[in-house]
Formats: sequence, structure tokens, C-alpha cells
Amino acid sequence: MEKFSVSPEGIKYALPDERAEREEIKVLDEVTLKQKQLGRKIVAVQGLGFVGAVMAEVVADSTKNGKPIYFVHGVQRPSMRSYWKVPVINRGESPIEATDPEVAEIFPRIVKEKKTLRATWSSHAFSLADIIVVDIQLDATKPVFGDAKTGYCDTGGFEKAIADLGRNIKPEALVLVETTVPPGTCRHIVKPILEREFKARGIDLSKNPPRIAHSYERVMPGRNYVSSIRNFWRTYSGIDETSTGMAEEFLNNVLDTKDYPLYKLNNTNASELAKTFENSFRATNIALVHEWALLAEEVGINLFEVVKSIRVRPTHRNLMNPGFGVGGYCLTKDPVLANWASLNIFKRTKGLEMAVHSVDINDLMPLHSLELAKSALGGTVSGKKVHLLGASYLNDVGDTRHSPSEIFWKAAAKEGAILSVHDPLVKVWPEVPEAKLETDLFGSLKDKDAVIFAVGHQEYLELDPQKVVEAAGKSLAIIDTQNLLNDEKIMKYLDLGCEVKGVGKGHIKNLKSVPK
Amino acid sequence: MEKFSVSPEGIKYALPDERAEREEIKVLDEVTLKQKQLGRKIVAVQGLGFVGAVMAEVVADSTKNGKPIYFVHGVQRPSMRSYWKVPVINRGESPIEATDPEVAEIFPRIVKEKKTLRATWSSHAFSLADIIVVDIQLDATKPVFGDAKTGYCDTGGFEKAIADLGRNIKPEALVLVETTVPPGTCRHIVKPILEREFKARGIDLSKNPPRIAHSYERVMPGRNYVSSIRNFWRTYSGIDETSTGMAEEFLNNVLDTKDYPLYKLNNTNASELAKTFENSFRATNIALVHEWALLAEEVGINLFEVVKSIRVRPTHRNLMNPGFGVGGYCLTKDPVLANWASLNIFKRTKGLEMAVHSVDINDLMPLHSLELAKSALGGTVSGKKVHLLGASYLNDVGDTRHSPSEIFWKAAAKEGAILSVHDPLVKVWPEVPEAKLETDLFGSLKDKDAVIFAVGHQEYLELDPQKVVEAAGKSLAIIDTQNLLNDEKIMKYLDLGCEVKGVGKGHIKNLKSVPK
Repeated sequence: MEKFSVSPEGIKYALPDERAEREEIKVLDEVTLKQKQLGRKIVAVQGLGFVGAVMAEVVADSTKNGKPIYFVHGVQRPSMRSYWKVPVINRGESPIEATDPEVAEIFPRIVKEKKTLRATWSSHAFSLADIIVVDIQLDATKPVFGDAKTGYCDTGGFEKAIADLGRNIKPEALVLVETTVPPGTCRHIVKPILEREFKARGIDLSKNPPRIAHSYERVMPGRNYVSSIRNFWRTYSGIDETSTGMAEEFLNNVLDTKDYPLYKLNNTNASELAKTFENSFRATNIALVHEWALLAEEVGINLFEVVKSIRVRPTHRNLMNPGFGVGGYCLTKDPVLANWASLNIFKRTKGLEMAVHSVDINDLMPLHSLELAKSALGGTVSGKKVHLLGASYLNDVGDTRHSPSEIFWKAAAKEGAILSVHDPLVKVWPEVPEAKLETDLFGSLKDKDAVIFAVGHQEYLELDPQKVVEAAGKSLAIIDTQNLLNDEKIMKYLDLGCEVKGVGKGHIKNLKSVPK
Repeated sequence: MEKFSVSPEGIKYALPDERAEREEIKVLDEVTLKQKQLGRKIVAVQGLGFVGAVMAEVVADSTKNGKPIYFVHGVQRPSMRSYWKVPVINRGESPIEATDPEVAEIFPRIVKEKKTLRATWSSHAFSLADIIVVDIQLDATKPVFGDAKTGYCDTGGFEKAIADLGRNIKPEALVLVETTVPPGTCRHIVKPILEREFKARGIDLSKNPPRIAHSYERVMPGRNYVSSIRNFWRTYSGIDETSTGMAEEFLNNVLDTKDYPLYKLNNTNASELAKTFENSFRATNIALVHEWALLAEEVGINLFEVVKSIRVRPTHRNLMNPGFGVGGYCLTKDPVLANWASLNIFKRTKGLEMAVHSVDINDLMPLHSLELAKSALGGTVSGKKVHLLGASYLNDVGDTRHSPSEIFWKAAAKEGAILSVHDPLVKVWPEVPEAKLETDLFGSLKDKDAVIFAVGHQEYLELDPQKVVEAAGKSLAIIDTQNLLNDEKIMKYLDLGCEVKGVGKGHIKNLKSVPK
């Protein structure tokens, strides 16, 4: 039976068969030969997800003296979930929905005009590359919600992908790991696998030790997506001096390292740790603030004002605001990766308890907003129409991965709430397939008992309380999880008979309705 | 029997008797009358400790159109411990040893020349003041080392001092609390006490509610001590609008609020919480880094380099370095004050667990350096001559309060180490009275088995390894707790046969001695 991969637009693409693979190998050889004759070096990007697709763009778009430096094979495994990206990219279209217009702009230019990028599913591409950038996914699994110390990293898929490189790459090619990995991965996972595969190919390791480097991205979804790859600071490291030098040259060629200088760390453990440490710092700070938000709510304090007052100190500018929770791909998992590495790669008896406990506090935060909703609704959400404004994890971004809205939805549904959701930037919500995303904001408010301001999208910032209550057709409970409502708006809602609660906004109980 | 108060210089001052008190009241009345005739407002500063003494200076030194605005009564209780400050100040001398030359410069100017400050022990001064600045000490007690959640705040002394104000102050005077207090203190402690005392005096509270405000200092010991009071951001709040306005006017008169604008919070709970929150943020970040330092040490990473690499991101510039521990008066207690307030003033069932757990991690940090010393000395410090370089809690500062060196000393002594200590800025170490502070750095090194680089004083930064080993007369163990040694120096020590360990410096084991 023929298998298909279906794009988000619903177009079906048949997965390639053996004949297609033989054809593809020929095409890859021809294309590569032609590109080499043009003086270009060959790069393969392994994995065309959120990071890999944009990294492939940036590399293919880079030039020296006006001429392209690299030709890029974008390699995506022919899985039912992701194969569709290959034909889509090769038509000059973007496989990624992004608010940054540059993401979609670059694909036609590099695929159709400059012809410096071609997508493929075939591992044969790796054998043709001088540099392989590893951008495959490596997840943390948290089997018990709220107990992240039981979380682990299943490296099986990652190891298979590295073995695929080991069987194919030229011995002198550089493997540049860009995936966020548990500290120790390049030395303790990538290196032994490549050595094993090299040996099996009869390669003399003393003459051809695998070339491995690590450099982590700091991608930020949103309006500056491409820029956050190209125009931002990078830390890198290599497994030996040759690898380090090769990584440095490559990064200097593709990134704006003049304005954002590279930072070299002298072993791969260090730069792998740096990425997880930097995100753990963030996750820990948010967790700390959550504790204080609960206190602030009980004692009549607006914690957002307090945070603002503290941030005037340059040494305290990174103090975070309280909120709905922590979502996205990084802060929810990187502390778990590091903790797991401490225990399993480095065989320590001690993990990173504070960082990993912060993940728990952050994961549980949306349940606090559920408590606020319950108290505003007289003690229960059961049978109440609860409407989420926002499904993504960040304002003005459509990325729903690990969003607090997902946790809220699932917990509220368990308690019998009748849930609905609106998000101007989200069309499908893969993590909550039962959710039907409404597109008409005011229409979606009709008859609701509670509205949760879950995400700070621009559209929600501008909402007029009068119109919200009119659209609902009655006074309702308003839960502000993101400081979207200033005191003036809160007082309008109160004046309209609404119950208003907010994360970290204990001062609301001191605000009084101003009846007309 | 006559009682005495002895100054650090060893001069004995007899505590005042009743007759002296009667005399003092007369003098206070006369001085105050004269100052009022000069058009000055009268300020009393309650408590002449680290903050109060300098705050009194700053207030007395403030001018408008070239003329002094305030006359200050600096009020110090006539205790054996502190009474000596009164005659010392009235001679125009500083009661504080500080590296900031301005501290000592201002006293003669305001006491002798401008005559805008006079010290007294008599509470009668409070009855003459328009504004009383409260700078008395309020400590947290941590009865179980390493279990800060059992910590509490004994408010007894503070309450007595406030009652003293209540019995004396003019009803319309402003009580401006500058002491770091448990959140809720102005509303739940200061206000009821003043009301009680006002009532006892027959004052009509409906006409004369006590005027209370809160504004916390952000004093930094060191070279910019005075400036850290005068030229730095201030948050303030009042218990009512009148109090808020009075506090605002006063702060605008005495501080540089043009360059460092005031930040008004709308209730005293909020600004009290802000101070403890801002220090808890700091304490938590240091605790987080400690965890990662332990990992870094085991896996060959120099965490200082990693921190540097992460700090290039503006959003991560406040990531802290690992170190010997956390000392000083604020970070060691403020999270405990807030936790205690949550449970005892606000009667919550939940404390501030993350903040208070961070205090434990930080308190225990010096024990890790002791472990490093033990491993460098072959497993034990028993019978070994262990020399601490630094007794204070901060580089280039002589303040020893709650210093990590104290914790290290006590723990190492228990394990049988023969301890000694040098600090160029510390003459007496009240917390460790058995320690004799050496003054000759090189002489102090003789015959030592281990040297702990405990504090980053300038003098230690410049130490040449060759000279250290020569002064010791043998190779010894070197423990770098503060990243005082760069790799070049570490390699020199290794070359000289020393064992070298460092907090967060796992890369040392990869550095090799370079024999001549």
C-alpha cells in the first residue's frame, strides 16, 4: 500500500520508493558536481524543522564578494509526518508558518533564483557534503506531570541519525551539532558512534578522526526569526583543533559575526552545558517569580509594578514577570536534558535539582490560573463555558508547542469545563486536536462565562471591555494571566459587573467599580 | 557600678546617667530652636549603624540654593555596644570604617563646619523632629544552619524602638522606615504600635493618624558607599496620601532624584516586598549557579568561561558567577524575612520556598570549598595548616558580617584544621574572635599546607605563584574559590608542585604542569 505525507494545507505526497531513491542519487550527484564546479562548498542540513529549515536558508543565502559560498542539501527523512517538506521547499515555498516575513521571502530566492538550496530525503546527500549541520529534534520526555526529575532523554532517534552520518559522510567532513543536546553528547554519544561507523567502513581513525563541533542557536520565534539565527551571538566549540577551526570558518561565513562576535569555548561539554544553563537560568527566574506572585495576590500587591520598580537597577533588569506559565520548546525541556546528562552521561549521583524543580513550578503554573477562574466562577468550572484567548506559548507567535494553554485546557476539561479557544495566529493545534480554533474573535465570545486572557497577542491588548461584555451578552469572569489589562480596563470590567482576577495582581481587590 | 561603651580604638566612654539625660534634653531643645530659626526642618535618624550613620550624613549634607535644608539629630541608644558612636560623631569623626573616603570626609564638614548634624542618645530628639528616619537593625535568626525555613524574625527590639517613637514624636511627624523589614511591617506592626501609643497620649487618631512611609536603601559597601545612598534609585510608598507626599518631598530633597528618579509603589506592603524580592532574586541566581559549578568541576568545564559566554546576551547579563559563598547582611537574611512574613504576618500556609531554599544552598557553599581543600590535602584537613586569604564577605571591603570565611573557619576548625587568616581590610573579626588577623601577607604564608583564596581583594589578585610558594617554604594546596587565578597562574602553581582546585573550575584537571 502506498504511503503518503500530508502537508498542513492538506496536499498528499506519496513517499518515495526504491526507484525514486535511485533516481534521487543520480540527481544529487549531478547537482553537487555542478555546484562544485561553481566553486561552492557543499553543506548538508540534517533535519528541516523550526531551526533546520531556517538555518538551511541562512547558509544558502550567504555570500562572499557577492557570490554564494555554499550549496545546501536540506535533508529531511521520508516520514509520513515530515516528507511533504521536501517537495514544498523544492517548489520554492516555505515549510514553516512564521510571523517573520523573511522566512517565506528567502525560499523562492535561494531555490528558484540563486539555486543554492535543494531539499532531499536521501542520506546520499551526506556523502557529498563538506559540512553537515545537525538540526534533528532531541526531546526530553517528562512521564510524570509536575515531577520533572523523572524526565529523561531518549537518544535512540538521535543516535540512529548520527549513525546514518557515520555510514555516509566523507571522513574529513565536519559534523556540526546545532541541536540542543544533553551536555556530553558530542564526546560521549556522537564521537563513539562516528568512530564505530568509520571503523566498519575501514577508515583509519588515527588518520581520520571524526570532525565534530558544537554550536547552539538562540532562535526566537516571532517577527525576527531569521535575524535571530543570522544576527545574534554564537558560542561554539570543537572536539579538536581542526574541528574547532572548521566550525569557526563556517560560522564566520554564514552569520553576522562582525556585529555579533563568536565566543569559543574550549570543549564541547562546555558549550553544550552553556545552552542548557542559559535556559535553566531563565526557567529558574520565572519559577521564583511565580512564588512571589502567589504572595502578591493574597496581600493586595500588583507584582508587575514591583518588578518594574526593581528593574530600574541594571543588575536586576532580567527579573521576569509573573504569567500564565512557561511554554515553547526550550525552557520546558533544557533543564531536564542537563539533569538527565548529569545522572546518565556523567554518572553523577547528583542532578540539577533547582533547575529541574523550576520546570515543575513552571509546568504547574497554568493550574493556578485555573484556580483563579474557579474562584471567579463561584468555586467550579464544571458546566461553565470557559474561553481561552490564545493557544500559542508566546505573544504574536503561532507556535503552540508545550503552551500553558494546553495544560490549562486539559486540566479544565477534566474538571468539566466547556472549553473554546481563539488565536489569531494558530490554525491547527496539534497538541489539543479536540480544540476547534475560532477565527471570529467577537463571535467566539458569545455566551461565555469566563474569558482567560492567556496570551498577549496584539489583538487582545486592544480589546475594549464594553465590547467584550456586549459580545458575551452578559457580565462574565475575566482572568488576566499576562498583565494585559491596565487598571482602567479592570475598573471598566468591574463596572460592567464582571469578576476580575489576575496572576500577580493582588491589587485588583482594592480597585473599586465606578458605577455610572 | 559605672558602665562603659568601648570604641573599636579601645577608648572607654561612660554611659550617660540621669543627670546627663536632663542636661541633654536642655541642649537638644536649645540646638533645635536655633536650627528652626535658621529655617531648617528637623530630622531624626534612629539608629547609627552601617546605613543610619551614612544616611544621617547625606541628609545633613543636603542643600537647596546652597543652604542646608535639614538639621539632623542622629540618635543612638546608649548601649554598651554602640554608645561610643555619639561622642565620636560629635567630635566630627566617622564611627564607620569604610573604603569610601567620602564617609570620613563628610562628618567633620557637617558636624564642625555646617553644624547640621549632632549625635545624641536621648529619645527626646524624636519629639523635636518633623521626620524620623528609622534605620535600626532588624535581623533574621536562622537557628538551624542549612535549614533557613526554620528561620524567623524577632521583632521585639524593633517594636520597642517604634513604641519609643510613638511615645515621643509629634503626631504630624513622618516616620520613614528605611530598615529592611518583613513585608507587611508598616501596616501590621508600625501602624498599630504608633496608634496604641498615640491613643495613650490622648491623641485623636481621626485627626492625627500616624504618618508612615517606607523607602528602602540599596547601600553597597565599598568605594562608593555614600554615593550608593545618594546617587541611586529609590522606591518608596506611604501608608496614606499625606505620608506618601511627605516621603516624596524628603527624598527629593536629600537624594539625586534627577539622575535617579524615584519610583512610587502604591502601598507599603509592595515596597517592603520589593526589597526582599530583589535580594531573593540575587540569592536564587547564585544558588542556581552553585549547582552547575559542581557539575562543571566534575566534567572538566570552567564555568566562569561559560558564564562569560552567556552574558553576551543582554537578557542574560545578570547570570552570576560561582564562588566561595554568599555573605553580607542582605542576601543571607532577606529571603528569610519574606518567608517569615508570608507565614506569620500574612498568615499564609505557604512560604517562599525557592527563595529560602536558596539561602540554604548559599549558606552551605563554603563547605564545598572545604571539601576541595580536603581532597587537595589527601582527604583531611586535620592537623593541616590552612590559611584563609580574606575574612570579609566582598572584595575590597572590610565588612565581615556573615562572611563565607566565617562558615569555612568554623567547619574546618571542627575537623581539626590549624587555621590562620589574613585580610588587608579587616582589623577585628567579631564573628570569629579566636582568629588573629595577620597583617604581613608573605609572613603569614610560612609553613602553610593550604591557602584558600577566599576573597578577591586587589592584593591577592596580584600575587605571584613563585613568591607564594617561596613564602610558604614548600609546595602547598591552592584553593581558588573566586576565580582569582587565571590559567597561566594555575599552571605555574602546578609547575611548582602545588595541588590546585577551584570552585567551578573543572578544567584545572586538564591543565598540565609545564616543568622547566
